[in-house]
Amino acid sequence: MTEKIVVTYEISGDRAREVAEAICVEQSIEFPAELAAEWIQDEVVGKIETLSPTREGLTTAVISYDQRNAGGELPQLVNVLWGNVSMLPGVRATAVELPPELLAKFRGPRFGIDGLRTMFQAPSRALVSTALKPMGSSSAELAEMAKTIALAGFDTIKDDHSLANQPWSLWRERVELVSDAVAEANAISGGNCVYAPSMNLQADQIHEAAHVAKALGAKSLLVLPGISGFDIMRVLAEDDELALPIMGHPSVLGAFVTPPQHGMAHDIVFGLLMRLAGADISIFPNFGGRFSFTPDECLSITKAARKELGNLKPTWISPAGGMTVERIKEMLDFYGTDTASLVGGALHRGSLKDNSEAMVAAIHSYSD
Amino acid sequence: MTEKIVVTYEISGDRAREVAEAICVEQSIEFPAELAAEWIQDEVVGKIETLSPTREGLTTAVISYDQRNAGGELPQLVNVLWGNVSMLPGVRATAVELPPELLAKFRGPRFGIDGLRTMFQAPSRALVSTALKPMGSSSAELAEMAKTIALAGFDTIKDDHSLANQPWSLWRERVELVSDAVAEANAISGGNCVYAPSMNLQADQIHEAAHVAKALGAKSLLVLPGISGFDIMRVLAEDDELALPIMGHPSVLGAFVTPPQHGMAHDIVFGLLMRLAGADISIFPNFGGRFSFTPDECLSITKAARKELGNLKPTWISPAGGMTVERIKEMLDFYGTDTASLVGGALHRGSLKDNSEAMVAAIHSYSD
Repeated sequence: MTEKIVVTYEISGDRAREVAEAICVEQSIEFPAELAAEWIQDEVVGKIETLSPTREGLTTAVISYDQRNAGGELPQLVNVLWGNVSMLPGVRATAVELPPELLAKFRGPRFGIDGLRTMFQAPSRALVSTALKPMGSSSAELAEMAKTIALAGFDTIKDDHSLANQPWSLWRERVELVSDAVAEANAISGGNCVYAPSMNLQADQIHEAAHVAKALGAKSLLVLPGISGFDIMRVLAEDDELALPIMGHPSVLGAFVTPPQHGMAHDIVFGLLMRLAGADISIFPNFGGRFSFTPDECLSITKAARKELGNLKPTWISPAGGMTVERIKEMLDFYGTDTASLVGGALHRGSLKDNSEAMVAAIHSYSD
Repeated sequence: MTEKIVVTYEISGDRAREVAEAICVEQSIEFPAELAAEWIQDEVVGKIETLSPTREGLTTAVISYDQRNAGGELPQLVNVLWGNVSMLPGVRATAVELPPELLAKFRGPRFGIDGLRTMFQAPSRALVSTALKPMGSSSAELAEMAKTIALAGFDTIKDDHSLANQPWSLWRERVELVSDAVAEANAISGGNCVYAPSMNLQADQIHEAAHVAKALGAKSLLVLPGISGFDIMRVLAEDDELALPIMGHPSVLGAFVTPPQHGMAHDIVFGLLMRLAGADISIFPNFGGRFSFTPDECLSITKAARKELGNLKPTWISPAGGMTVERIKEMLDFYGTDTASLVGGALHRGSLKDNSEAMVAAIHSYSD
């Protein structure tokens, strides 16, 4: 028996069967089913496994696809899950099950939870993370900030996701100065802080730039799969010569998750896809911050990031977006300590040094 | 005075000013504005130009960003337009104006409307296009179809967008056999049919595979920017050694346009972004087909694809998705002849040869 990719779609409206049948064809052969050879109708076209009304005009359709339809590659897997169906109104993918044979094609996170615990000598505590801001700062200013933060004992410092090649701070200059500053701080403190430059660069430069970043001393990479595609993250994660922890940023990915009756569920995007693509840390907006995610949605991501998934290591979650040091206890109570706590702008309210030290203390003392 | 990127957002709900102010910061410095240096507040943070209620609880906010925020690169431009704001509910980007200095960074379509008119010796008529289907067919079967279609006088034949590296037809084998079949047909007919293999491949292989495709005889490329990112399309379009016409496919891009009060407008995605990224042909679902686009939305794409935009050539539109030969007259009446008519599965209802010839005749006779 062939192994199946099983996708649950939530369909709005009263034509759910018709829509489900359309999905079966649209996400596979895109061809009048009755004109296809019988074996193609049997094996290649999606199959409705169950169709059941749920609540308020919603129907849950479980549709299975032959795993061969994905051809063992992430770009085509995304296409199978949510390609043309993205143009159908009122359809949301809410769950995905992948068969072992397909899962085995993915290496997933290189480090995962245990790997970064070893790297940061943090056997049980949460990780301490931040971002370099604001855009407009010079590379030297950002490097100075990074040094202060690294000296305070942070584990990870990433570029703000919108730092690219702006004239105020060009990418290469920034990577060099910040990497040096973090290395200097580590030399002074004996710490292991890593800096993750943003790889939101031109498509033909990303892979090479990752090697440049490593050569300049960067010890992690920030990828924006909503802009660059999930598969370039996989490429960077699987590159044994890089072997750097990968952080995934949610920019643009809100297009998938934000509309309640459309797109893909939060756990598919920030849990499953990030993990298949090799994110060691999946950043998403925490509830109660500047964005719209609910506690339940955040929890669903958390479960997907940590649950058993073939041989793939679990991914750190990093709930962010307008977080403060004061919320750390509440967040760790909620998420547990397999969490990369990320506080950004709030560290700059007053003394960056004092706030950074307070954040490190809050995280370290939580697990004491 | 600095040149501005001007984005119009439609905001749902009664907290429009608050949301607009959040967008100004979120899409630029992502930092408490009052903590940033004064010049950053003045120059780098987005500015609300106008805020005006429109209809039914909607407010139109026109927000301008310093063009330097995009750093002259497409990935960061996408990030400025629709990065973190994607995670705010009820916000849709409905219009984008780019300043000349930024536009000048983009080459856009290599061929555009005039270039493909020359290539296909079609001084005024529409183009005749189709896709190779269904998934499950062998490369030899797809090549045989392509030969029949090319002999009938088609201008472009693309891979179905879901053909990748499935076991029934591996990419390289398919590109070789179909390219050969189309070349054979051209040799017999004296035609200029081009075959566009799908480049929905692994991220580190796309650019090289495009060169392989050209070496194997493919004379066009199909790119799925919803999966691979818009910038890899730009890379392929700007590669002078490739110099092949680029087709853009809408897969996954429905995530941006389908929810009515979220995402980006149809003309931004299928007009502006496709054109900046160098699509010579922008494929999107025609109204009245299998998908949800309205005539007005289709028309807005058409205008954006053809309007003056710096020095960028105009892009062919290719309304598709469940189209039939019978609808060609209606479509050309609606869109005009700067249109790459695309009929797919319907050509297989009965004789592929007869239907293909009928489609060519319908298009050629329309402009007689």
